[in-house]
Amino acid sequence: MAQQPASAISPTRQEDYPEWYQQVIAAADLAENSPVRGCMVIKPWGYRLWENIQHVLDGMFKATGHQNAYFPLFIPVSFLQKEAEHVEGFAKECAVVTHHRLKADADGKLVPDGLLAEPLVVRPTSETIIGAMFAKWTQSYRDLPLLINQWANVVRWEMRTRMFLRTTEFLWQEGHTVHATEAEAREETMRMLAVYADFAENYMAMPVLCGEKTESERFPGAVATYSIEAMMQDRKALQAGTSHFLGQNFAKASQIKFLDESNQEVYAWTTSWGVSTRLIGGLLMTHADDDGLVLPPRLASAHVVILPVIHKDETRAQVMEYCTSLAAELRSISYAGRPITVELDAREGRGGEKTWAWIKKGVPVRLEIGPRDIASNSVFAGRRDRGPKERISLPRAQFVAQLPALLDEIQAGLLERARAFRAQHTRAIDTKDDLYAFFTPANAEKPEIHAGFALAHWAGDRAQEEQLKNDLNVTIRCIPLDAPAEDGRCFLTGRPSHRRVVFAKAY
Amino acid sequence: MAQQPASAISPTRQEDYPEWYQQVIAAADLAENSPVRGCMVIKPWGYRLWENIQHVLDGMFKATGHQNAYFPLFIPVSFLQKEAEHVEGFAKECAVVTHHRLKADADGKLVPDGLLAEPLVVRPTSETIIGAMFAKWTQSYRDLPLLINQWANVVRWEMRTRMFLRTTEFLWQEGHTVHATEAEAREETMRMLAVYADFAENYMAMPVLCGEKTESERFPGAVATYSIEAMMQDRKALQAGTSHFLGQNFAKASQIKFLDESNQEVYAWTTSWGVSTRLIGGLLMTHADDDGLVLPPRLASAHVVILPVIHKDETRAQVMEYCTSLAAELRSISYAGRPITVELDAREGRGGEKTWAWIKKGVPVRLEIGPRDIASNSVFAGRRDRGPKERISLPRAQFVAQLPALLDEIQAGLLERARAFRAQHTRAIDTKDDLYAFFTPANAEKPEIHAGFALAHWAGDRAQEEQLKNDLNVTIRCIPLDAPAEDGRCFLTGRPSHRRVVFAKAY
Repeated sequence: MAQQPASAISPTRQEDYPEWYQQVIAAADLAENSPVRGCMVIKPWGYRLWENIQHVLDGMFKATGHQNAYFPLFIPVSFLQKEAEHVEGFAKECAVVTHHRLKADADGKLVPDGLLAEPLVVRPTSETIIGAMFAKWTQSYRDLPLLINQWANVVRWEMRTRMFLRTTEFLWQEGHTVHATEAEAREETMRMLAVYADFAENYMAMPVLCGEKTESERFPGAVATYSIEAMMQDRKALQAGTSHFLGQNFAKASQIKFLDESNQEVYAWTTSWGVSTRLIGGLLMTHADDDGLVLPPRLASAHVVILPVIHKDETRAQVMEYCTSLAAELRSISYAGRPITVELDAREGRGGEKTWAWIKKGVPVRLEIGPRDIASNSVFAGRRDRGPKERISLPRAQFVAQLPALLDEIQAGLLERARAFRAQHTRAIDTKDDLYAFFTPANAEKPEIHAGFALAHWAGDRAQEEQLKNDLNVTIRCIPLDAPAEDGRCFLTGRPSHRRVVFAKAY
Repeated sequence: MAQQPASAISPTRQEDYPEWYQQVIAAADLAENSPVRGCMVIKPWGYRLWENIQHVLDGMFKATGHQNAYFPLFIPVSFLQKEAEHVEGFAKECAVVTHHRLKADADGKLVPDGLLAEPLVVRPTSETIIGAMFAKWTQSYRDLPLLINQWANVVRWEMRTRMFLRTTEFLWQEGHTVHATEAEAREETMRMLAVYADFAENYMAMPVLCGEKTESERFPGAVATYSIEAMMQDRKALQAGTSHFLGQNFAKASQIKFLDESNQEVYAWTTSWGVSTRLIGGLLMTHADDDGLVLPPRLASAHVVILPVIHKDETRAQVMEYCTSLAAELRSISYAGRPITVELDAREGRGGEKTWAWIKKGVPVRLEIGPRDIASNSVFAGRRDRGPKERISLPRAQFVAQLPALLDEIQAGLLERARAFRAQHTRAIDTKDDLYAFFTPANAEKPEIHAGFALAHWAGDRAQEEQLKNDLNVTIRCIPLDAPAEDGRCFLTGRPSHRRVVFAKAY
């Protein structure tokens, strides 16, 4: 192996966390910025991750009775206006289509032409346009529930963007459902939150807290918003998915009504829920280290990379044959619902550089195969969750037979490590002074490393939440659903409280 | 079964073909028009077809070495302008984003605000924005070939739209590749044309002609455009997929250059190729009949529908149990690379109405199951490619064992029928009079039924092509790749010609 740098990614997390994040993306070749303001290009290694995420989630949505459909990219401004809070929430950051062609002006410059009678907004989310269709499809209680999901791109004109975490255009899924009763709609809201939590923990290996948002963090137009919240390695929170109980707000805005069993026309109850390519940013910041990306096996763009070690031309054919047959053997194994994916890196180049390239790409298992391994019918294996020098020789048959178990072990280890990290940086806090101290950086030169999650009693109002945000850049991430009942007093107002909520800095 | 109408779809193909097309879509619940001009909503039954199409094509693209990626929805106008013919082709029909927020005017009406310095076009196709990225990624001959595909939505502001065939927004895939040599780029162009033809014939059961477009039908900016062309049941041609050899036009426009093996900086050679949701319109018009949609099994939204026949409440539990276990048994079978999809229609309602609903949806195999079938452990089966009354009783085990073969038989039969239809309506024509007669409707009251494909020698120019288009609304669909060499004379100019080309009216 080539001479090893102190770490493959520079700067390290400790040195400059935001820049480390960008460098991991670049080193793994996940994505890059495009010439279009705030829009990224998702490169093949990153897009494979998204495909794997889609595949698993899509199966979970279908298993819970949902069907996919596709609705228009454009929303007439008058539709967006139907729900007052909704338009308030999105009007300030939407791309507006005003013309339907270009023409050359006197100087030959192309300028917009063909003014539209009504401007169209590029969907920032689709409640209003889907609601218009749901109003047609919902006539009788027999038509309900309507359980629809859409995989799509959406646009929100963000002023400060960061790849995967906040981009002007992003890819997501948005579930939209209609129910006859409030109870069923609330049940759906919680079911999909649970699906997201299951996916985050069991596929991304990213532990999450499930909870309700406070009023100030609610989706515009929702009655209640629930989220899954994960802790990143800079100890900031990432809202990784949301599920909204919309009550009858959008049903009234879009006239989604039906005849109930007693033949009365009543408004329906709706929900919506979504996750996006932001998950990839969350996955990165949960597992990546100073050597680059670390992929959880169940979603990995590839499970195994095979690196042929060829020092002499006369061994080339033999080594390549062994590697090719090994790759084929591994690809015939199924793991977590899909075939094992193998990269066979037969490019010319120095072994050490190639090895490091795959470490930075986060492949869970690396195999170096040279004539000595072939002579003993074995493989020389390294794991991405261990140090880069820690490798062992294993009989080929044993490695092949144990690969699924090895991947499961890596997957479980990543989740456990992330859980331990979160536990280490979560503190119960009872006084305002302690909370302010917790969120005030000890090292003013490294403000990007944040304190973590503070569990504290809270009975304040919206203005007081705003104050904390202004003072500390801290928000209530959620009111956890599974927090134990515990009588206490709000650290700020002293008013009684019955459970702790989660405070953190957040993306 | 309920009393049977003369046909389930009204009007029939003969009575009013364009309206029949819309009615088949409505009756099968494939899609419907949205409140957004020219944009459709793809409903679950239609979207499943698209998912199946995506699944198969995606596998074919990956098997030929392509990787998926994702590029921005928006294209700065200056990028579109880089290739002169390209911008000429798309400037007249593109959605233009000019603002990035909305604000309330004095009357409280929301109006565009936040004017962009440079307008953005919603991608009508992505050569120019992808080209900008390819220019960065292509540095050395070692970086080539670049073989990228994108699944995406695109927008072309069409004045006359028709669901699936021509919509303002549509879903598609666009392949974009970069090669070191002209030969490799030409080979790629033909490889992907062959992939499309394979898919059309072997999955859609839609026979296609492969050929090159004349200059007037070329993709704006291409050196050569190839297409697959299918005959619809009104005997018009449908261009169902295109593959473009772009020469160095886009490489020069986007500065896609690389150092070749002799360390010289040279321009690369590029291709692009795409198919869209238009395929669903083609599939419909190839196979649907006056009773509605007919789905080829390899892409069917569902392979089998089970209709429990319950006349008395006391048999309900027994019938449902049998049907549920049969559904589970069928779902465990794999067919054409995915599990058999079964719909179990346990809704209340009259048997005949339910049966007709599934006939109109095009499900290949229907099973009606009542107490008598259960008593004999059998199924009562009907095929969508046969008359609605033609059903047979089969032992359950035999039906289960033979289902994949039955589906293959239906698939093969649909292709054969479509081939026979095309052959029946394809004629070799040698004179101008015959060609004009062929394309002049015998019945002026039913101009929507068109003559078919005319194979004729051609050595005319672009102006003469234009003349045929004006006189007859007929175009050269393609110069077939596999047409036998045959010396003849152009029916219009009398000039010598060495092969026949295909004339037809077209979508």
